[in-house]
Parts: sequence; structure tokens; C-alpha cells
Amino acid sequence: MTHSAFLEELHTLVDPGKVLTDADSLEAYGKDWTKQFAPAPSAIVFPKTTEQVQAIVRWANTHKVALVPSGGRTGLSAAAVATNGEVVVSFDYMNKTGAVNTVDRTVVCQPGVITKQLQNLAKDHDLYYPVDFASSGSSQIGGNIGTNAGGIKVIRYGMTRNWVAGLKVVTGKGDLLELNKDLIKNATGYDLRQLFIGAEGTLGFVVEATMRLDRAPKNLTAMVLGTPDFDSIMPVLHAFRGKLDLTAFEFFSDKALAKVMARGDVPPPFTTECPFYALLEFEATTEQVSNEALATFEHCVEQGWVIDGVMSQSEQQLANLWKLREYISETISHRTPYKNDISVTVAQVPAFLKEIDAIVSESYPDFEVVWYGHIGDGNLHLNILKPEDLDKEAFFAKCVSVNKAVFETVQKYNGSISAEHGVGLVKRDYLNYSRSEAEIQYMKALKAVFDPNGIMNPGKIFAV
Amino acid sequence: MTHSAFLEELHTLVDPGKVLTDADSLEAYGKDWTKQFAPAPSAIVFPKTTEQVQAIVRWANTHKVALVPSGGRTGLSAAAVATNGEVVVSFDYMNKTGAVNTVDRTVVCQPGVITKQLQNLAKDHDLYYPVDFASSGSSQIGGNIGTNAGGIKVIRYGMTRNWVAGLKVVTGKGDLLELNKDLIKNATGYDLRQLFIGAEGTLGFVVEATMRLDRAPKNLTAMVLGTPDFDSIMPVLHAFRGKLDLTAFEFFSDKALAKVMARGDVPPPFTTECPFYALLEFEATTEQVSNEALATFEHCVEQGWVIDGVMSQSEQQLANLWKLREYISETISHRTPYKNDISVTVAQVPAFLKEIDAIVSESYPDFEVVWYGHIGDGNLHLNILKPEDLDKEAFFAKCVSVNKAVFETVQKYNGSISAEHGVGLVKRDYLNYSRSEAEIQYMKALKAVFDPNGIMNPGKIFAV
Repeated sequence: MTHSAFLEELHTLVDPGKVLTDADSLEAYGKDWTKQFAPAPSAIVFPKTTEQVQAIVRWANTHKVALVPSGGRTGLSAAAVATNGEVVVSFDYMNKTGAVNTVDRTVVCQPGVITKQLQNLAKDHDLYYPVDFASSGSSQIGGNIGTNAGGIKVIRYGMTRNWVAGLKVVTGKGDLLELNKDLIKNATGYDLRQLFIGAEGTLGFVVEATMRLDRAPKNLTAMVLGTPDFDSIMPVLHAFRGKLDLTAFEFFSDKALAKVMARGDVPPPFTTECPFYALLEFEATTEQVSNEALATFEHCVEQGWVIDGVMSQSEQQLANLWKLREYISETISHRTPYKNDISVTVAQVPAFLKEIDAIVSESYPDFEVVWYGHIGDGNLHLNILKPEDLDKEAFFAKCVSVNKAVFETVQKYNGSISAEHGVGLVKRDYLNYSRSEAEIQYMKALKAVFDPNGIMNPGKIFAV
Repeated sequence: MTHSAFLEELHTLVDPGKVLTDADSLEAYGKDWTKQFAPAPSAIVFPKTTEQVQAIVRWANTHKVALVPSGGRTGLSAAAVATNGEVVVSFDYMNKTGAVNTVDRTVVCQPGVITKQLQNLAKDHDLYYPVDFASSGSSQIGGNIGTNAGGIKVIRYGMTRNWVAGLKVVTGKGDLLELNKDLIKNATGYDLRQLFIGAEGTLGFVVEATMRLDRAPKNLTAMVLGTPDFDSIMPVLHAFRGKLDLTAFEFFSDKALAKVMARGDVPPPFTTECPFYALLEFEATTEQVSNEALATFEHCVEQGWVIDGVMSQSEQQLANLWKLREYISETISHRTPYKNDISVTVAQVPAFLKEIDAIVSESYPDFEVVWYGHIGDGNLHLNILKPEDLDKEAFFAKCVSVNKAVFETVQKYNGSISAEHGVGLVKRDYLNYSRSEAEIQYMKALKAVFDPNGIMNPGKIFAV
């Protein structure tokens, strides 16, 4: 069959007009937020039903066509990038939610539901979808599941994995599996649901997910604390965790704050300048809790761990303090940052950060480095900004060359080369720094079980 | 090689005296708490190190000897029963814990660590291991992981799965895998750790687990509430969940309470007789929380959902109220109960219980039925007691014949035929009521990846 005959057949599997091959669409749907890879898909297909997804997968098996799943395209690992004539399967039209089940606190979502849409729906029922991150306004649930998205509330609520009650997937063989059926307790053999979470679409495509919701948080209150050095952040974390149930514990550097301040639309937390800042959040359910927070703050000041601090007194102030952290990524994006998303166990963070910082600043003294991240989970975002006068290719080439040293350090600390962004194409060649050869071989064997023809997002996680 | 030559070789793989073949040991270590299967292992081997476990697995591969893992032998699905000449691998001598990491709130455990031992160790550090159930005094961590143990605190803390930060396993091929390395965030491909949790030792054996701990709960307080009928329990659950962060929500029937009362060593909750009882627990961190609980209780009384109730005012009273629920299993054990451990989504519990109750009472009007369980998780324990004058075989035969109707109802409700006890030999032939044929085929294919010679606990979960 010729290439165009293939595509003609694809048109018959979905609704009229739901296969696009124009250059703009191929460019737009062929990539995610990563910029390193040139998109080159053959076509974009938009299924509307599970049956259409199954038909597409069966068609792909028959003709050995590679498929790339596509959600909100906000990924940072190029897991949803089509560089090699693949057919992109976009879930934009599978974006419905079911009725909220307020007894089980669950809601059925199609994969194309936007994270924010789910968060708002939960809010309408006085409930809460707690997985939250900078791109929640455009990321989709299917993509969140594919990468096991984390974000800013993991210290309290865990990753996306914790919130998936049930999953319907179409495997690479075209089978529809209904996994776990939304049960809390179900000890009937291997929990296949877990395997598809974080698999980046390499085993199958999610066609429906039942997501859990939590009770709405009560009177969320944030503190921003300035510390004299990075090491002081750890005893601050320990002190507050010992007294309060934290919903977040983030950090950022003075350089990160300066970038956000330069925007001019966010008030500074306080006037004292500090090299590092911690942002923590908790539910101030009673005055006693707020007093406990203030007493802990004073203790931290007395110990010399904290120089200055502020606590939100209103929802507006809470929102403003969060902007200090949440706007960082967006504010530095025009500087084409080279991002590393790495993690170690929490106790090892200070030594690890110091070592990585030394590597980067010694190798590239002229590069500007912006640190921020989720200290409470051991997850650090290292952002290297492109100097204005360096072109993109030369800049990325230099960054890639420092990766080896960074990842060797990650390996030394038994850490992860990708804490929450996934592997995709970007981290694929470094996977061995976090996973053993035996593990990688087992992963490949598992892929062969669910996707014997290798048509599901091939080349992602590991090379074909 | 002759059978005795096999065993001679096995002796060389472990410490002196750590292979037993005497009749008493074969009987004792060849079974768990289930009574339906006659134990018939060839030998019991007690490794002390990971290397010895690897050596045993390699030896078993060479000689195609089946291995059965054995922990605290408190299982209720015969997953740790050797009926067919297998070699039992007991983890009794791999029972050490590492130092508690108070920053990460983790502790490294060998598989033979007793659940209670871990709970106590956490307590010594003002921390908490929250997975708790009737057999925690003898069950082992390796077994808990193998069956993804649940218990009485799942509504707040989830299953064992939530508390496994990292796992070292020896696969059926003899490979040692170090999975997840205790990280909170790690998006580097398939999370193989999840696959081994709940796999009942059919893919590999856990040789080390890093378990997470939580902060110690504050001023735990229980309420026992009597309801006029089963249906009233659900609005009570809904009302309390809306106001408080519950750490438990259990139920039991008047028959269950009567059994515990007949012991004579537990005070009654109150004198009013009710057909059903709910036991709920929460942290009374402030007087405001206790007042909220009392106000919710009064609301439930006004609505007619609750007839009488009591709230614990001391640790002793808390312990006494919990005995009403926790002693049930032990109290009825001399009646050789036929246990079913089933679950549905929480919203479906009332209709489901009514239907199952009707099936059992219509089919066997002379059988005594005791209901209790974890209502907050949709998990019901149905216990049918053996009449004194019926012999064990005839009783079990009758119960098995009613299973079909029970499991058809479970299937109709999209429920689980084993909520937290696992599959083992007991539920193996009913697996298709909860898992599709396609799922079962994928599970078998996954087993073949990790255990190509089929030596790891063969016949459990599915027939060989």
C-alpha cells in the first residue's frame, strides 16, 4: 500500500475532517514544549471514542505505522514529539468528564480533559484535585498519567499515580483493558494500572481515567522565608514538618526571585535580600495552627536559619506569594533555559545541590544558573540560561556536554535523572544513570508484551 | 540428579543447619492460616542474606525446583502454602531493620521484619507506620508487600503500596533489581516496584524494602455509633467525612458484637442494642475538632441514622472500643469461618451487601453469617460460621457452592473477589470474576518475563 493509501484508510476510521496533514498542523501537533527536535509527523488524527482509538491502533499494527500520543503538548522530555513520520494521535476531542461521584469522591475523565478543568470541576463540588503545576491550564489528564505528573503539592498529596482510581487503556495490541475498576482495595493479581502510569504511551494509550478527588483544603496559608544559605533550608523544613502538616515546601534562589521581580507585576515578599527562599504552605484550620507556625518561624529565626519572613493573611496574599515561585518558569522561558529535573532523597539534597552547583559553575562560569524546586520531595530544577550572544545550537551543545558530569553525580547519590518530566527523547540516552542494565532489559521485555510490533511511541524511554 | 542430591546441594547454599526437612517443620512452614490445603513441601530453607536468596533462585532454575516464599504465614489465600513438593524459602532470619532516617522518614527493612516490630521502631522515633491489621503481631513486611496488605487505616493512609519507598528484589531469573531507590519523584520509565507489590512472590522475592513512615498521629479518638439498619451507616460516613479527616471507618453487625461480648473481657460500648455499629476514628487535635465530632453525632441522631453512641475519652477507652472490632476475627476463629473478602466502590456498598446477604441467607438459612469490614474503603468481610454438627469438609463444600452466586454478584457490581487477602490458591479459580481474560493473559506473559522457568510460587494467582 502506498503512503497516501494508508492515510486514506486512516480517514475512514474517525469522524470526517479528523485527520490533518497540512503543514501548520503537522508543526503544531508534532511537538511538545521541548525545542530540540524538529517535528515531522505524517498526519494528525483526532479520535472521538474508545472504539476509534482501538481502530487506529489496529490499523497501525496492520501497516506497522508508529503512533505518537499527544495531549496538552506541555511535556518537557519530548515524549510527545513526532520526528520520524509517525501518526500523532491527539486526544483534544476526547475531553469530557462524567458526573462527580461525591460518595467515592471520583470522576471519570477522558484523556483530553485539561488539568484545570478537572480542578475546577472538583471545586464546584467543594472537592479538590490536588495535582498542580505550572502548565495545569493546558496539560491534559492523559499526559499527566503518561508522565506521572508531580508538581507543587506532592509533599502532601503524592504524584498523579495516587489519584488514578481506574484506567481504561488500549494496549499496543489493540486490546481494551479496564484496570482496577475504581476500587480502593483490589488484591487480584498484578496491578497493571500502575504499569501504564508513567509509561509515556509506550505500552498503550489511556482512553479513560477515573480520578480521585480529595476534600477541599481549609484556609490555605503560605509563608515565604529568607535563609542565609541553602543549608539552612533543611532544618527549616524539618522544624515545620515536625509541627504542621505541610501542603507544599518549595524553594528558589535570589536569582530566580530577581527574574520574577523584574516583571514588575508581583510584590516582593519583604525587603531583606536573602540568597535563598523557602515557600511553605499549610491549612490554618485553627488559630492554634497559625500560632504554631509563627512560633516555629521565631524558633528558626533564633537558630539563625531564617533572616526574614512573611505569612499570608488573605487569599490575595496567598496568591501573590505563590506567584514568586510559580512565575519563575514562565519568566525565564525567553532565555531558552536548559532544564534539568533531578532528584535525590531529601536528606541528601544539600550535599547534592552543592556538588552539582560546583560542577556547573566551574565548567561554565559565564552561564547564569537559576535553581528552584520542590525541596520537600528532593526534586531540584536546575535551569541554565542561554547568554544573549550565544546561539541556541552552541548553547545546547555546551549544556549537553556538562550533562555527563551532572548525571554521574546523580548516579553517585542514587538519584533520578528525571524526577517528574519523564524520559522521552531528551533523557533516553541517559537512562542508565538511573536504571540498571537489567532493569532496562526487563522494561524492554514488558514493552514487547503489550506492544509486540513496537508501534506505540517508539524511540521514547529507550531507542528502538 | 536424585532428589536427595538436590537437597544436599541446597545445604551448601545457606548457613549450616538452615535447611529443614523434618516432618514438624514441613508441616509448620508448609502452610499459612488457611486450612483447606495439606502442606507437602520437600524442604524449608532459611537464607540470611540477599546473596543466599540469589543462590537459591539460581539453584531452583538449574534444577527446575519450585520455590514458595514464606513470611509470617498469616495469609488467608494460601499464597504461602506448599502442597506439591516445593522448597519453602522462609525469611525468618532476614529480620533486621536499618537506622531510621528521620529526615526522609524511611527505614530499610529485611523481608522477615514483623509488622509490629516496624510499628514499634517508628514509635520509638515519634513516627508512625500506619498499615495495621489483626495479624500485625506475626505478619512480615515481605508478606505484606507480596499481598499489598490493607487493614483498618486505609481510608487515611492507603495500602502497603503507598509506604514502599524502594524495593530490592531477586527476580525469577535470579537478577537482583534495586527499584526506585527510595525516591519520592522518579519518572525514569516503568515503575517495576509497583509490579512486585501484590504479586504474591510469583515474579520474584523481596529481599529488602525501604518503608516510609508518617508523623505520629495526635490524640486519636474513636466513636462507636449504633445504627437502626445498614443503610444508615452510609450517610453517617458521609457526614463525618465532610467534617473530619477520618483515620478509620469500620463497621460490624450485632452478631459480630455478640461474639466479642461473649468473651467477657471487653466492656460493651453502650447498652442500647442496635443491628449495626460503625467505628470511626480521628485525630482530636483541638477541642474544636472534638466539638465538631459531637455536633456531627447529634446531627446523625436527629436524622435518625444513629440510635446511640460513645466517644473515647482516654487511650484506654480508645483501645477498648477498637477491641470490639479487632477481636471479631479471633473470636470466631474456632467456628472455622468461611471467609470472603470482597469489595466494591463505596457508593455501591449498601445495595451490594443487601444482595449478597440475601443470597447467603436464602441458600443457607441455617448458617450463621457475621459481617464486618472496612466500609470507608468498600471492603466487606463476609464470614459464614460452621454449624457445630456439620463436619468441615461438608461445610466447605456447601460454602464453595455458594461462591459462584456471590462472585457473580461481585462481577455485576464491578467489584473485587479479593479486596486485601490476595488470590493464592483459594481465589485462583475465580480470578475471571474480577479480571478479564485479556488481563489474565497479559499477567501470565509478565510472569514469563520475570520467571521464564515458572519456579516462583507456581500455581498461585493462576494455574500453571
